[in-house]
Amino acid sequence: MTLADKLNAGETVLTAWSTLAAPAVVELLARADFEAVTLDMQHGAHSVDSVHDGILAIAAAGKPAIVRIPVGRNDMVSRALDFSADAIIAPMINSVEDARAFAAHAKYLPVGQRSWGPARALSMRGIQKGQDYLSSANDKTVAFAMIETRAALASLDEILAVPGIDGVFVGPSDFSISWTNGAAVDPHHEEMTEAIADIGRRARAAGKHAGVFVFDAPRTQSYVKMGFNLLSVIHDGAYLSLGMSTMLDQARNG
Amino acid sequence: MTLADKLNAGETVLTAWSTLAAPAVVELLARADFEAVTLDMQHGAHSVDSVHDGILAIAAAGKPAIVRIPVGRNDMVSRALDFSADAIIAPMINSVEDARAFAAHAKYLPVGQRSWGPARALSMRGIQKGQDYLSSANDKTVAFAMIETRAALASLDEILAVPGIDGVFVGPSDFSISWTNGAAVDPHHEEMTEAIADIGRRARAAGKHAGVFVFDAPRTQSYVKMGFNLLSVIHDGAYLSLGMSTMLDQARNG
Amino acid sequence: MTLADKLNAGETVLTAWSTLAAPAVVELLARADFEAVTLDMQHGAHSVDSVHDGILAIAAAGKPAIVRIPVGRNDMVSRALDFSADAIIAPMINSVEDARAFAAHAKYLPVGQRSWGPARALSMRGIQKGQDYLSSANDKTVAFAMIETRAALASLDEILAVPGIDGVFVGPSDFSISWTNGAAVDPHHEEMTEAIADIGRRARAAGKHAGVFVFDAPRTQSYVKMGFNLLSVIHDGAYLSLGMSTMLDQARNG
Amino acid sequence: MTLADKLNAGETVLTAWSTLAAPAVVELLARADFEAVTLDMQHGAHSVDSVHDGILAIAAAGKPAIVRIPVGRNDMVSRALDFSADAIIAPMINSVEDARAFAAHAKYLPVGQRSWGPARALSMRGIQKGQDYLSSANDKTVAFAMIETRAALASLDEILAVPGIDGVFVGPSDFSISWTNGAAVDPHHEEMTEAIADIGRRARAAGKHAGVFVFDAPRTQSYVKMGFNLLSVIHDGAYLSLGMSTMLDQARNG
Amino acid sequence: MTLADKLNAGETVLTAWSTLAAPAVVELLARADFEAVTLDMQHGAHSVDSVHDGILAIAAAGKPAIVRIPVGRNDMVSRALDFSADAIIAPMINSVEDARAFAAHAKYLPVGQRSWGPARALSMRGIQKGQDYLSSANDKTVAFAMIETRAALASLDEILAVPGIDGVFVGPSDFSISWTNGAAVDPHHEEMTEAIADIGRRARAAGKHAGVFVFDAPRTQSYVKMGFNLLSVIHDGAYLSLGMSTMLDQARNG
Amino acid sequence: MTLADKLNAGETVLTAWSTLAAPAVVELLARADFEAVTLDMQHGAHSVDSVHDGILAIAAAGKPAIVRIPVGRNDMVSRALDFSADAIIAPMINSVEDARAFAAHAKYLPVGQRSWGPARALSMRGIQKGQDYLSSANDKTVAFAMIETRAALASLDEILAVPGIDGVFVGPSDFSISWTNGAAVDPHHEEMTEAIADIGRRARAAGKHAGVFVFDAPRTQSYVKMGFNLLSVIHDGAYLSLGMSTMLDQARNG
Ligand SMILES: [Mg+2]
Ligand SMILES: [Mg+2]
Ligand SMILES: [Mg+2]
Ligand SMILES: [Mg+2]
Ligand SMILES: [Mg+2]
Ligand SMILES: [Mg+2]
Repeated sequence: MTLADKLNAGETVLTAWSTLAAPAVVELLARADFEAVTLDMQHGAHSVDSVHDGILAIAAAGKPAIVRIPVGRNDMVSRALDFSADAIIAPMINSVEDARAFAAHAKYLPVGQRSWGPARALSMRGIQKGQDYLSSANDKTVAFAMIETRAALASLDEILAVPGIDGVFVGPSDFSISWTNGAAVDPHHEEMTEAIADIGRRARAAGKHAGVFVFDAPRTQSYVKMGFNLLSVIHDGAYLSLGMSTMLDQARNG
Repeated sequence: MTLADKLNAGETVLTAWSTLAAPAVVELLARADFEAVTLDMQHGAHSVDSVHDGILAIAAAGKPAIVRIPVGRNDMVSRALDFSADAIIAPMINSVEDARAFAAHAKYLPVGQRSWGPARALSMRGIQKGQDYLSSANDKTVAFAMIETRAALASLDEILAVPGIDGVFVGPSDFSISWTNGAAVDPHHEEMTEAIADIGRRARAAGKHAGVFVFDAPRTQSYVKMGFNLLSVIHDGAYLSLGMSTMLDQARNG
Repeated sequence: MTLADKLNAGETVLTAWSTLAAPAVVELLARADFEAVTLDMQHGAHSVDSVHDGILAIAAAGKPAIVRIPVGRNDMVSRALDFSADAIIAPMINSVEDARAFAAHAKYLPVGQRSWGPARALSMRGIQKGQDYLSSANDKTVAFAMIETRAALASLDEILAVPGIDGVFVGPSDFSISWTNGAAVDPHHEEMTEAIADIGRRARAAGKHAGVFVFDAPRTQSYVKMGFNLLSVIHDGAYLSLGMSTMLDQARNG
Repeated sequence: MTLADKLNAGETVLTAWSTLAAPAVVELLARADFEAVTLDMQHGAHSVDSVHDGILAIAAAGKPAIVRIPVGRNDMVSRALDFSADAIIAPMINSVEDARAFAAHAKYLPVGQRSWGPARALSMRGIQKGQDYLSSANDKTVAFAMIETRAALASLDEILAVPGIDGVFVGPSDFSISWTNGAAVDPHHEEMTEAIADIGRRARAAGKHAGVFVFDAPRTQSYVKMGFNLLSVIHDGAYLSLGMSTMLDQARNG
Repeated sequence: MTLADKLNAGETVLTAWSTLAAPAVVELLARADFEAVTLDMQHGAHSVDSVHDGILAIAAAGKPAIVRIPVGRNDMVSRALDFSADAIIAPMINSVEDARAFAAHAKYLPVGQRSWGPARALSMRGIQKGQDYLSSANDKTVAFAMIETRAALASLDEILAVPGIDGVFVGPSDFSISWTNGAAVDPHHEEMTEAIADIGRRARAAGKHAGVFVFDAPRTQSYVKMGFNLLSVIHDGAYLSLGMSTMLDQARNG
Repeated sequence: MTLADKLNAGETVLTAWSTLAAPAVVELLARADFEAVTLDMQHGAHSVDSVHDGILAIAAAGKPAIVRIPVGRNDMVSRALDFSADAIIAPMINSVEDARAFAAHAKYLPVGQRSWGPARALSMRGIQKGQDYLSSANDKTVAFAMIETRAALASLDEILAVPGIDGVFVGPSDFSISWTNGAAVDPHHEEMTEAIADIGRRARAAGKHAGVFVFDAPRTQSYVKMGFNLLSVIHDGAYLSLGMSTMLDQARNG
């Protein structure tokens, strides 16, 4: 079952978040108990090479791969899909124009203008005929537009209406900076909680998926209740830190 | 003789097409009987690093290096030329504005606005004085604009007239998707064959080069007859697959 | 003392210039007697990976890291800052619009729209709380807009007035190509010397920093006299060449 | 079914042979119609890194991975097994002492002295308890000793009798050099054909596996008839060359 | 204070253990609250490149770097020291001959026969004169011989007496396999606990250091009580796994 | 003309010495005015990968490539030759046994026992038939045994008499440590100068080549007078340092 199928079937997907651009780490994330792994090219260290290799490591564990591209780097949207990514998260989609440009690279005609060349995706998915991929790719890959500013919120309905945008993904830290005009970074800023919940609800009501970056694992289910169905669990640096501090404490204090 | 010289002298150039971003593979492509090697950053796995190293591997075999950049990544146009590429292929040049932006990064003033810094190109070409490179680079490197949509076809004459655009390069698969508005991908779609031939003829008539991606090697000469003078021969993944299936058949069936 | 602090305190900073994208070389540049090291992604071979690793090599020597991004690649502005760079040099800032787009990625709200995610910068700088980084990053990182065309010169005052642009950086080679409309590349072109000096003076008068790429080390102090306070010393390829030719001469001629 | 199980069940295994140390190439070999892929660290370009990554690429295609180590590099025997290789081929096992040293690194006590640390093999195989791996690894991984000199032939029965040596693997080129005392390299040297057949028969008669490097694919079945059950099919450089020359011929001559 | 100084001063050193050969991971281990970081080339994925880069990442955090070499790979002893490692752990030192060969590569004359060439160690340590390094290196770098078989235990006193062996390091898993002649792998095997304690005591009594690989963090202090002064805390894969499972549990169950 | 031919023709060869394992640096060394480039795997950072890539960079400049292996790593002797190296320098050849083991991996039968598999050397040299390489390789590649201890000096005549040893190479720093039993490292130690000259003379008198590592470029010709015909010129770190300090001095003091 692809990521698209899972989300469409109503499943809640927890994704590992990879910032340490090493295939060996991606491999471990993929074998853990997440339903997906996201490779972060925006704030993580991932590059073209590590995304290419990372997608293989994720596929080897039978999991779907999600790639977050850098701001405005729509060339990577189709490259990551060609490499066999299952979904793309595009940051800072602050206007309907941003959303349209993103969708143009994520979807083939007639929805967008994605360019043809998915040799590796075919190979990894065991698809023999290009035509079969062309016919299914728009539906089977998922494009998430990040909603993380007041401007994006103001354009939310329009963005949700853009053909080819399959979902939104909330970035609570950036949202808090935007909310406070640079005064604070706080993903759990109380005043904006209702706005985030509203994004989740409106996206689902529009028949689109709703993702969110979760900075504090115990809050995950509260986001699920808002309607979010793709939820990151912090990132690999945090997993490592928590593991190290826990074990160091055990080692020093028995 | 540079690629520009060969093409200007009326030679037909067959280029290997590299998608597996490994210098060791590029090295073998370069030592085979092609006249050039193209490193594909759009649908292939090539990155900044592999293009840098791949150009050396190609030069070591005395062949010219061509780089296809990702969609819209004009920053890579001048970077690849600085790394000593002989030609650039820019995908999805669908309008005269696209063509002008591409040419701006491919050519120095007064044609374009390429930024100065070709230390490696000078080193690899044995050029001592920067001024000598400045005076010759616009002529000795080749900029190919990909014509692969109906929109591009509609603007063909204008694109051909853009100073700094040295040739066009047809992408038949994308062209078929555009031709059918997303219904089919078929590089040999019959209804568009005449349009492709027309692109070849008009480009040559305008004194520009004409390239095409060939998906089926035996059809190569039919493209040559249409006027195309730079022809890719599928790609490295296909060479490998054909070699493997041939040898496996021999191994199993003697 | 950060680079920003040094420059603000009136110090003159000489930076090594790294084009050979190998951490082992960066490490040696960082341990030499420069005050900073610049990693060049525009004309040098640096990639996302080598910038990530290079910044660590520079930090290990206790020096500030500067990154020059490729033309127009504003996605790399915030990525390099996230990776803990201290300053960014953006090439070909030829208009106030270019400057604003650059500043938007270099600074957090309310100055720009830099996106949040500096996990590595926090880790490398030993900052515990994100809020502390948010409050200080705009001041403690430095954004240099390259002035290297006649167009840029014509817009200099406007560019200097853009919030978030902390300084300008002159590229004399490109400036000479622009000055001569492509006829010559000569970083020491006499006719433009006064213009360059003028850029230095106007930048400092506007309370901004002034950098310049120095192609001939003995001329460095003449630029300092013009007001420039960040000066590159050629690049690593030149250091290597000078060292090799000197030693080869000694080896052959005793 | 593991490689050991397949071979024990009487299946004939054709292995791709990887010398181009690029995961992207290994990935294609693994998805082709071979039953296994061998990563060559002796005459191929494989290194610790490429073996680590290559094993993942092979596993992602559901195939077993074989690693040929460099001459005498027994440290790599256990490292490759730790990385989750299914079999090791050790070159130039010319004496029973060589065989014993190899087996010592390939098998745990009481057969050999392999050191414990298979974290990645456990992870990739989905084994939860180390004890389960310890109990099965000696049987489920396969150690092939290369027989490729007259000296090795003279010690064949002794080598076959070494506990932990699961099979032999003939290197016909080296064998021909040994056979002719350096006069000729010819993997199909007629005078030694019977000796090679004899090695195959004796190995199988001793209850061990028999592998051979096949330089000419159509001869494969003749080796099968001699009893060989693991057969390489030349190497990736040859696949690529054959594919390129075939397609170039088609491109030039239609 | 170097690792040697710390150990000699009676401090207990907890070392992170790195098996995921990525500098970005090493960097995080180094910035955590361990007193040292060990790069594992035996059972971890570390290679020459990752050790070279990893040592820089550790130094950047002001921590000492330890390298465990593969079995018998004494060439890496001096290479790692040349790269500026502070200590070497050599696995499977099962005899006094093994210990002497290890010490020969770890120490300069008159103790051993380490070859000269520590350019990077000098650079990283800020040592100007080679003579200063020569005079101090034997004392300031630490050579640990792994005691992990019954044979090694039987030769313990002799091994401890080898000049240049600065300490021993117990591998409890291998020790358990040896203890049970391959029947069991259990680092906490009860019957051998006293033997391990004995190793710690005898090493310290002989004026040497005593290290141990700790598989279960809460047992760390029990090893300290036995006299061990260098203690690993599992490895990075375990930190990551613990962090992931903890956070996933929080995410699913609040 | 190969390196062997040059040396046999009586030419004096100055080699660049590469320790910074980056192809981009090797490329610049190769394009400088040295007659050869040596890649150092013993004290430099070179690994299997960088040697593979570095040999290409050297060949691209039409120069011969020399590889110094780590101590005792004879597996790398034939690997480097397979990768198309022209010569091997083996460190710490302190006995005739060491020399024989080295020669065994450097030469094919009947001289040694080098294993067959030079696919890349054939490709890079444009040799079609393996037999042609087999017949010429022993003569056309050069094996240098390092003489750098008192023990080696005592066995010099025997080492020179080992078939397959084409020359010796003096390591003056290690020689000084050996000479002083660890008291001093001084490549120009006066008391041993005559011994070094003697090595050069005896090697040449025996019809073998004589190489030496030169730490102080102006002394090069004095070694030439002693008969040395392969001379390193310090190393790349020193070229870089000299270039940096020279330019920094110019920049600061005009
Ligand atoms: Mg965000
Ligand atoms: Mg296309
Ligand atoms: Mg410029
Ligand atoms: Mg062989
Ligand atoms: Mg052990
Ligand atoms: Mg030496």
